[in-house]
Amino acid sequence: MKLAGQSRRTIEPAADGASVVVLDQTLLPFGVDWRRLATLEDAADAIRTMVVRGAPLIGVTAAYGLALAMRRNPTDRGLDHAVRTLAATRPTAVNLRWALETVRARVAPVAPSARRAAAWAAAGDLAEDDVRTNLAIGRHGLAAVRDVHARTGRRVEVLTHCNAGWLATVDGGTALAPVYAAFDAGVPVHVWVDETRPRNQGARLTAFELLEHGVPCTLVADNAGGHLMQHGRVDVCFVGADRVTATGDVANKVGTYLKALAARDNGVPFYVAAPGSTIDFTLADGVREIPIEERNEAEVTTMEGVDEEGAPRTVRIAPIGVAAANPAFDVTPARLVTGIVTERGIAPATRAGLASLFPDRTGGPA
Amino acid sequence: MKLAGQSRRTIEPAADGASVVVLDQTLLPFGVDWRRLATLEDAADAIRTMVVRGAPLIGVTAAYGLALAMRRNPTDRGLDHAVRTLAATRPTAVNLRWALETVRARVAPVAPSARRAAAWAAAGDLAEDDVRTNLAIGRHGLAAVRDVHARTGRRVEVLTHCNAGWLATVDGGTALAPVYAAFDAGVPVHVWVDETRPRNQGARLTAFELLEHGVPCTLVADNAGGHLMQHGRVDVCFVGADRVTATGDVANKVGTYLKALAARDNGVPFYVAAPGSTIDFTLADGVREIPIEERNEAEVTTMEGVDEEGAPRTVRIAPIGVAAANPAFDVTPARLVTGIVTERGIAPATRAGLASLFPDRTGGPA
Repeated sequence: MKLAGQSRRTIEPAADGASVVVLDQTLLPFGVDWRRLATLEDAADAIRTMVVRGAPLIGVTAAYGLALAMRRNPTDRGLDHAVRTLAATRPTAVNLRWALETVRARVAPVAPSARRAAAWAAAGDLAEDDVRTNLAIGRHGLAAVRDVHARTGRRVEVLTHCNAGWLATVDGGTALAPVYAAFDAGVPVHVWVDETRPRNQGARLTAFELLEHGVPCTLVADNAGGHLMQHGRVDVCFVGADRVTATGDVANKVGTYLKALAARDNGVPFYVAAPGSTIDFTLADGVREIPIEERNEAEVTTMEGVDEEGAPRTVRIAPIGVAAANPAFDVTPARLVTGIVTERGIAPATRAGLASLFPDRTGGPA
Repeated sequence: MKLAGQSRRTIEPAADGASVVVLDQTLLPFGVDWRRLATLEDAADAIRTMVVRGAPLIGVTAAYGLALAMRRNPTDRGLDHAVRTLAATRPTAVNLRWALETVRARVAPVAPSARRAAAWAAAGDLAEDDVRTNLAIGRHGLAAVRDVHARTGRRVEVLTHCNAGWLATVDGGTALAPVYAAFDAGVPVHVWVDETRPRNQGARLTAFELLEHGVPCTLVADNAGGHLMQHGRVDVCFVGADRVTATGDVANKVGTYLKALAARDNGVPFYVAAPGSTIDFTLADGVREIPIEERNEAEVTTMEGVDEEGAPRTVRIAPIGVAAANPAFDVTPARLVTGIVTERGIAPATRAGLASLFPDRTGGPA
């Protein structure tokens, strides 16, 4: 994606294998700064403090963290310590653990002297895999965007929630991949960006990355999407997913379900764009089976921003003493989902639909 | 309602007819201060700068503004000037104009020397009417709350959006009237308060007034309601209305429609509580016919609050240069509304249902 006119990735390895630089997402959208990670501790700290966020990007950052650790201590003990340290940074991140095990499987069998290079190559492969996956999601989703444009002959109006864009990945994004694919292919497109309270990833991250890449977009309060759809101002929704069940239920940032209901009520297609690795084939009922993280009340009762001088400030926006609840995700039932856009194509949000694209994951015919 | 343990109204006339005091709502929830209005200009300024807000309260404040004007200049010219000045403060407020005409109709026929007393009495009658109306709404809505409690045997979980409470009225509120009625009657009740971006009337006003009155409540992001309903944590929704069509469509604060969709999807009763004066019997299709005010972008891109020292601060929460859209209301189709709670009872959200409660407004049988 473009940042200040340059093509950049959110994580970029140095040629000598001695460090990586990552875009510091804690400062966005008000500050753009890159941070150099040269050690295991640097990488663990970047994940822990959310300098990097988004499941794919966390996984790749952890993989590079393991590679950096192998420069200092490539022993079995060093490898174990690095995996444990990195895995502990975000205890619930499934993708993080998967990335670490993937790199470990390539590093452990080789001699300590070769581990630094093996880990570096494995991390690079994970990064390239992420980019390839997102490009494929973008290609498949683009077909849906082109369909709208062919039917209406005008700019395609997309609505998205939270940030499942470039900033959540190494490059290209998941929910935003079809948007970038359309924009880069010259299909006229405009994005309604849900602010996404309480953490405001839409306002802070999605609006930022769309602006940087030059994609027309308009920020709206989370409350506005139903009104926009009622008045024909949304042609298609694309959202990401934190977990998809075998039956097509989708856990994603809280509020996604409300937009899916409005899309259904107004005949607007509602697509979930996510890599196949997001599908959990062990789950059948998203609402019952997916645990929803309850986060800190302060995210609801306060707001971060910058003051007139551009200095970061947190303000309290609710009365002292009020209780707040902060569920971080909700589950959109499969019946409200038009399709799951994966790197292998668009699947109906059904057990049969997902199984047909991923027979290798379900024990079905290859 | 209770404020700091005392029963207070949002507007309180002095016994000598020389002034009224109003709660300054621009400072809430961080500062509680009362402002004395002694002149026409004081009243107009209080309405214009949103020291008072909420259709019923604006109407009553304007009525007292007219009475204060009659102290200084009770001539026909003085009366015309006062009506024009007050009507211009909020050009789209239907209720404001209605209140002014009601007072004018009682004042104009009497001699100038008697106008001051006539206007003061008319304003007082409007205030008492509002309180009586809200008490009746509360009594009718209480039946719905009691039904839930009788069925479940546990605390009744209410969800509300925006502020249609005490602070929007002289006393008692509209959407919150059934909540206060339940609380005061000893029916255990708890309110999920939608923050209500972008102006945060839920966080700033509804949470404040519920806390002051002692009603248990929990603030949530606007995104959370669907999740709460999916998990059986909401028994009933009560919202207010800015306008109700003859067919039962409801214009209310943006985001109301999304909650109504979630309520329907989860079998949660969704009530709109509003005085009969809110029903516009000339309209049949809310989505097509009710114009939706588009407000300033800054309400979306910035947030007001207080800093660590309690000083008011506005922070920017979106990237510089991003466009924002800010529709202030949306329309909830009648098919999603369980009932319209009015001072005359609960009507089905249908033409026949509303007409049966208000035959005097529709030319039907009296």
